[in-house]
Parts: sequence; C-alpha cells; structure tokens
Amino acid sequence: MKIFSLVIVLFLTLCSYAQNIDSIRIRAIYDEALSSLRSYQYLKQLCKGVGHRLTASPNSYKAVDWGYELMQSLQPDTVYKQEIIVPHWVRGEKSIIKIKGQTKPMHATALGMSVGTDGKTIEGELLIVHQLKQLDTLGSLVKDKIVLYNRALNPRFINTGNAYGACFDQRWWGASNAAKYGAKGVLVRSLTLREDSFPHSGGMRYVDSIKKIPAAAISIKDAKKLGQIYQTGKRPIISMKMNCINKPDTIHYNVIAEIKGNKFPDEIITIGGHLDSWDLGEGAHDDGAGSVHTIEAMRLLLQTGYRPQRTLRFVLFMNEENGNNGGKFYAKYAKEKGENHYCAIESDRGGFTPRGFTIDGPKNHIKHIQQWSELLSPYDINVLKEGWGGVDIKPLKDNGPITLIGYLPDNQRYFDHHHAASDILENVHPRELELGAASIASLLYLIDKYGLPAQNLKGENKIDLH
Amino acid sequence: MKIFSLVIVLFLTLCSYAQNIDSIRIRAIYDEALSSLRSYQYLKQLCKGVGHRLTASPNSYKAVDWGYELMQSLQPDTVYKQEIIVPHWVRGEKSIIKIKGQTKPMHATALGMSVGTDGKTIEGELLIVHQLKQLDTLGSLVKDKIVLYNRALNPRFINTGNAYGACFDQRWWGASNAAKYGAKGVLVRSLTLREDSFPHSGGMRYVDSIKKIPAAAISIKDAKKLGQIYQTGKRPIISMKMNCINKPDTIHYNVIAEIKGNKFPDEIITIGGHLDSWDLGEGAHDDGAGSVHTIEAMRLLLQTGYRPQRTLRFVLFMNEENGNNGGKFYAKYAKEKGENHYCAIESDRGGFTPRGFTIDGPKNHIKHIQQWSELLSPYDINVLKEGWGGVDIKPLKDNGPITLIGYLPDNQRYFDHHHAASDILENVHPRELELGAASIASLLYLIDKYGLPAQNLKGENKIDLH
Repeated sequence: MKIFSLVIVLFLTLCSYAQNIDSIRIRAIYDEALSSLRSYQYLKQLCKGVGHRLTASPNSYKAVDWGYELMQSLQPDTVYKQEIIVPHWVRGEKSIIKIKGQTKPMHATALGMSVGTDGKTIEGELLIVHQLKQLDTLGSLVKDKIVLYNRALNPRFINTGNAYGACFDQRWWGASNAAKYGAKGVLVRSLTLREDSFPHSGGMRYVDSIKKIPAAAISIKDAKKLGQIYQTGKRPIISMKMNCINKPDTIHYNVIAEIKGNKFPDEIITIGGHLDSWDLGEGAHDDGAGSVHTIEAMRLLLQTGYRPQRTLRFVLFMNEENGNNGGKFYAKYAKEKGENHYCAIESDRGGFTPRGFTIDGPKNHIKHIQQWSELLSPYDINVLKEGWGGVDIKPLKDNGPITLIGYLPDNQRYFDHHHAASDILENVHPRELELGAASIASLLYLIDKYGLPAQNLKGENKIDLH
Repeated sequence: MKIFSLVIVLFLTLCSYAQNIDSIRIRAIYDEALSSLRSYQYLKQLCKGVGHRLTASPNSYKAVDWGYELMQSLQPDTVYKQEIIVPHWVRGEKSIIKIKGQTKPMHATALGMSVGTDGKTIEGELLIVHQLKQLDTLGSLVKDKIVLYNRALNPRFINTGNAYGACFDQRWWGASNAAKYGAKGVLVRSLTLREDSFPHSGGMRYVDSIKKIPAAAISIKDAKKLGQIYQTGKRPIISMKMNCINKPDTIHYNVIAEIKGNKFPDEIITIGGHLDSWDLGEGAHDDGAGSVHTIEAMRLLLQTGYRPQRTLRFVLFMNEENGNNGGKFYAKYAKEKGENHYCAIESDRGGFTPRGFTIDGPKNHIKHIQQWSELLSPYDINVLKEGWGGVDIKPLKDNGPITLIGYLPDNQRYFDHHHAASDILENVHPRELELGAASIASLLYLIDKYGLPAQNLKGENKIDLH
C-alpha cells in the first residue's frame, strides 16, 4: 500500500509539475502578446498600407509581398511563396442599381464572380420572393423580371453565423435559380443583421448549364424600402448596370513560413488565415485578422523561445473569397509530396474577443483537447467543442483523416461588417485582436507538445506527458 | 429490481420534462428579446432623451421620472419612488489644468467629490510618482508640489477590471495621501488601457483629518507627455483651476418596480443597475446598460407570461457613482421593515456580450447555480463562478446572509469608455446589450422557480423540481 501511495503521489506531482510548466509557458505567450499588441500594428500595415486585396488585384500581390517580408523579418526556418492558379474577377466601375425614374441609385454592390451587363443597362419589373423554391411555383411569371431575394436574417439565432448560414442560399444560388425561369437579373438583401446602408458583397456560383445573369447585393435599408413599395401593390421597374467581368485565370501565391519540428519533423501542423479580401473596406476582420493571428502566433512562439517538436507551418492563403484555390492547391501539393498533415487550425471569423475553438475531428480528439480547458479558461477560452474548422484548411480532409480546428471569437458584431465597406481597422479592437493570436499560439503549443491521440480510437485518451 | 428501474426511469423522465419546460421558457425569453431589441430603444431614450445624469443634477431627476413612467407602462404590480438622501457635488465650469506657459490646457476633468480652487488658479512644481507609498519616502519634498500619479494600467491582465483595480488607489486615496505631505493638488493618469485623449473621471475620497486638495484626471496622452518631459529632468509648473463644489445633501429617489410572488411573496429577489452616471458622455455602458437590463428583464418575464413564486423587485438605484446612497438606503429600509432578501443580482459592468455571472455566496449556492449551465450554455453563458456581486446590492449583506450575483459581460472594451465622454449610445451594440437582458431574465427565472438551497449547508444540493 505504501509503495502504491508513493507512486500515486509521484504521478500527481509530475502531473502538477507539467501543468505548471504549461501555465508558465501560456502566461509568457499572453504577456508578450498583451504588452506588445503587435497584431494590431501588423493589421494597420495591411489595412492602411495595402488596403483591400481582391484576388488577382494589384493590391493582392502587394499583400503577398507584405506577408512574405514580414514573416521573413521574424526569422522562422523558412519563408516561401507557393505558386497557385486563381480566378481573376474584376468589379470594374461601381454598379448602378436604380428604381427607374429615381435619380439616386440604391446602395448596391455586384456579387463576386457575377457577370456584368455588357456596357448596357438592363431593366425588368421587380419580383420579390423570400425562398428560392417560391420561383418554382411562379414559373413563367418570373420571365424578364428582376428578382429580389428578400429573406431577412433571423435575429433569434444566438450565433449570428447560423443566421447568416440560413440565408446564404439566396446569395450563392439565387442567380441560377432565377435564370432558370427567365429572370433578367437578381438582387439579394445583404446578409447582415445590422440595419444600415452598407451593401454586403460575397461570392456566388452559377450552374453551368443555365444562362448567367447579373447579381448584386443591396443594403438592408434599400431592401426594406423595396419591400414596402411592393406590399402596396406597386411593381416598380428596376434598372441594373454592372461592369464586372471574369478574366482568364492567372498565377498567384500562398505565403508560407515554417518552423521545423525537432522531434517529429514530418508531422505538419498548419495554421492559417486568408490574405485576400473583398474589394470593399479593408478586409480588416475578414480576414486581415486571421492573417495577423497567423503571423503573430508564429512570432509569439519564437519570441517566447519555444522550439516545436512537430513542423509548424504558418500559411497566408490566397483566394478564399472567390474560389478557395489557395486552400485547394495547398492540399494538392501536400498530397503530391505525400506530406503527413497532423492537424490544422484556421482563423476566419474575425478579430473579436476569444470564446474558444470548434473542432472538426473524432470524438477522442475533442475530449483530448477539452482536457486543456483548465489551462485555457484563465484566458477566457471557455468553449472547446465540436464544430467547423475553416474553408482554407478543409481541402486537407480529402488527403486523409485530419483534425481541423476553427478559432472561435465572439460573433455578435462579425456580420455588421462582413464583406462591407465598414470592415476597416477602426472596427477592430487592439486587445480583442491580440487575445486571439495568443489563444491560437497557446493551443498550437499544447497540440505540438502533447500531440493528439491516434484517430478513431474509442474511449478516453489521457494526456501522455512528455 | 424492476420497481427500482421503473422509479429511476420515472425520475429521469420527470427531470428531462422539467429541463424541457425550462428550455422552452428560456428560448421564449431570448426570442422575445432578440426580435424586439427593446433594451436599445430604452437606452436611446435615456442617453439621447435625458443625457448624463450625475446625482442631484436636473438630469438625474429627469431620469427618475423616465424610469418611473417606463416601468409603469410595462404594468408590473407596483412602481414607486423610494426617497433617499444623497450628496450634491457640482462640477461647475470645466477645469483648466495647464503646463504653465502653454496656452492649450490638458485633457482633464475634476475627480468626483473633489474640492475646487475657490475661484483661484493654484500653481505648483510637478512631482511624478507611480505608487502612493513613494510619497512617504519623499516626505518634505512633496510640499507645495502638484503630484501626478502616473502608474499605468497593466495590459497583461486578461480581465481589464483587474488592471483597473490595481490602479484604483491612485484615484481614490491619491489626494489625501499627497496632502498629508503638503502637496497643493493632485493629478491622476486616467484609469483606462486605451491610448487616447479622453480624461476619465470617477469618485475619490478624502481622509477627514487631512486638508482637502483638488484632484483631477488627465488623459493617457497628457500623462505620457508629462512623463516624458519629467524624464528629461525638467520640472514644469502645473496650474490648476477647478470650479467644483460640494453642496448640502439633498433628497433623491431609487425607482422600484415589483412583481408579487404567488407562493413565497415574502422572499424578495432584487435585480438592479444604477440610474445615475458621471457627467461626461451619456453613461451608456455605466450604467445605462444595467438600468435597461433591469427594466427589460422585467418586461421579458411579463411578456412571456411568467408569474413568479417569489417577489421580484426591479430597482434603478440612484447615486452609485459618488456615495452609493441608493444602495445604502435600500438596505436600510429593508432592515427596518424586516424584509427577507433572498438573493440579489446587479448589472454594472457594461452592455457587452454575455460571458456569464459571478456569484458572491456560499459554495453550495455556486454549485447549485452551476447545475443550470446546460440550460444556459446554448446562449453563450459559459461562466458561472465565484466572484463579485455589485456595489448597489452590497449593503444588503449587512442585513444578514444573502447571495449576490453580478452579471458578467465581456470586459475588453469597458474601460475604454468608463467615466469618459466616449461612454455614449453609439458605443453600445444592440444585440450585445439585449443578450444581457435575456441572460439576466433567464437566471432570474431559474432562481425564482428552483430557489437556492439553505445557506451554509455542506455537500451537494440537487435541484428540487417544483
């Protein structure tokens, strides 16, 4: 009994010693982060020095150079540009969407990847629907109309991302869904909960076999106004002039920095955000925040003297917004080289105050990560639960089993600015942004140090302290 | 064995039935809250219709009328004004604090309750310290100086409230601590982490036996500038002209609405925020947010048809900022009437997105409340832990054992605006504010329905479903 007790005491002592080392390491990461607030300085360079950076725009190449040089200055083992092919959509002159007869245009913006109107102004009677399916019952009545999808985000969702998700089909599939019945053009109520005059852009997709018609987002205030006019029985004529074009695909780059693992160099942990943005505002939250989280997480580990066991790869992905070719090519190259991707973390939900992480992986990985909650809860990391990883890292899943992790900041303000002209540096809070970088660096440290259990194992995995 | 199993099954079914009823009730509260966003409408009335409302100022009486009428319109059982005595401090004309010889004054504001300079301008050589104790070693060198307490908030604290707390002594005791050694006046670096030009006011206290000298806060930028000048060895003369005076105490009011309990009417649950504010900005977060949380929590329970078992008392306290006489008188009257105060909740940490609640009560109450985390976590209420209740409700503790609960929103932005001209409606987010009201209403419902276990009991208390 005595020896048994001694073993127990020894074991508990070792556990508490390891826990203590981890506490000190994580504390050092946060101390460095909060006393230097570098994330915000980096974001300022990106937002004010480069500006918005739509894939294949001149700014997007400037951003690549900025990221490359900044990462190099922080002296990881290597920094390189990974060549990829990207679509090249150009907005052209501002879209003009009007109620015919009125001089003042609506607050509107072409949806990303939409066709233009070939230098002409197209006109059609307004038809308002709230569900894609409604057009199936209207059938031939849709012909020559300009269709407004006017379903509002449901404010009852606690997580605004769920409210967004429930209206996303309007923007993504709306054009082809209406073109099928002969509509001339499509308007979409902006996907935001904030009642203001900012139109919110975003990607859309055409069904190949259906005629491509132009699609634009209008602000909530404009959408509500059209809704009110429509309810009185009036059917105004809407005119659309859009100057966007799709150019041939072109060459671009992911920017990658690497710190080689000193024990398991072949096990790669990817952490990333996307460097491209829409061409309204400055892409501050989406996803300037994720880009600087990535760079700052690297700096924090280097600065606090941590040498990883596994290879850490910090990636600024290109083209998440209109193609996701950065993520796709990254996964493709990884497959071709037979790389062992151990786990991936993405930050693409803005630079708000941390709530935690969502985990797209097997149950035993989720439980494993939840064991660290005692280490992370002093830093207001309260949520470690099953959920979404990220768009850029998702293609890695096609290469084999991998656990993806999404950084989860508070979400209440995200869609106020998402894809809109108000997504600027001034709407990012320095400490909130920085806490995100420190959270990611801390999780990265724990995953690297303790690893994740073998995939698909059942039962409880205890942390193997080493 | 079979009967035993049946009992177990029955018990679990009943538990899950009760849990389900609670889920539905809480969902209804949040649905009503998020679809109506009334908190923000109320706050707009208070901030833009009334404005800031320093105790005993004309606006503070307007605010009482506003609260009284609004609460009456929501038709609880009773609404009344509770007469109290309050201090009457008047800022007078704007304070002028300058470096002698410079034309532009610093961004400064008199600290609340400070004496003025009797119509004169006082002058003294600048002396900068970072700790109150430093003056003990300087002794006679302090004579005739104007002392700047220039200790900065430590950004390494995760919770900004702790950073504030660690510098609070400069503002609260700084004047008497310097007057003891013959200083002429005192400046305090504003208690905020944001580097801007807003001076942040706040209360201070004199030691009765020591000469009262004037005290003002200066902005972070001004404090840093003085620090830089000082470091070069220069000792500029500071001039202060402050026009504040302390008038005789006067009559004021707490505003109280009550819903009578239908089962235990003598058990009173108080929920409150404070209606008074500093006279800079609009007191939007501090504590307009807590005031409208209180009113809206009441409306949400009424609107969703909940009839409480206990008596719920919704209190808009007066004079938290410079005397706390609202809270003191409220407790005094409760004692005189022999009221049984069951529990109290306060909202006075701003209108930011909810993180949870902190509980100042016995361990078994904390554990009891933590049992509700499954019901509350879908609403991003992740923290239910031991901690501070609130200034207004604290005097109730002198009447006997009582559990106090403080609403805990995210804290990163709170001290950016605290007691400053930037504490205005525009810096409050409608959904974040509203989620606070719904969180408080939901907790109030659970406490009323399930009660709290007997105080000071040891061991685990299971919820008694009734």
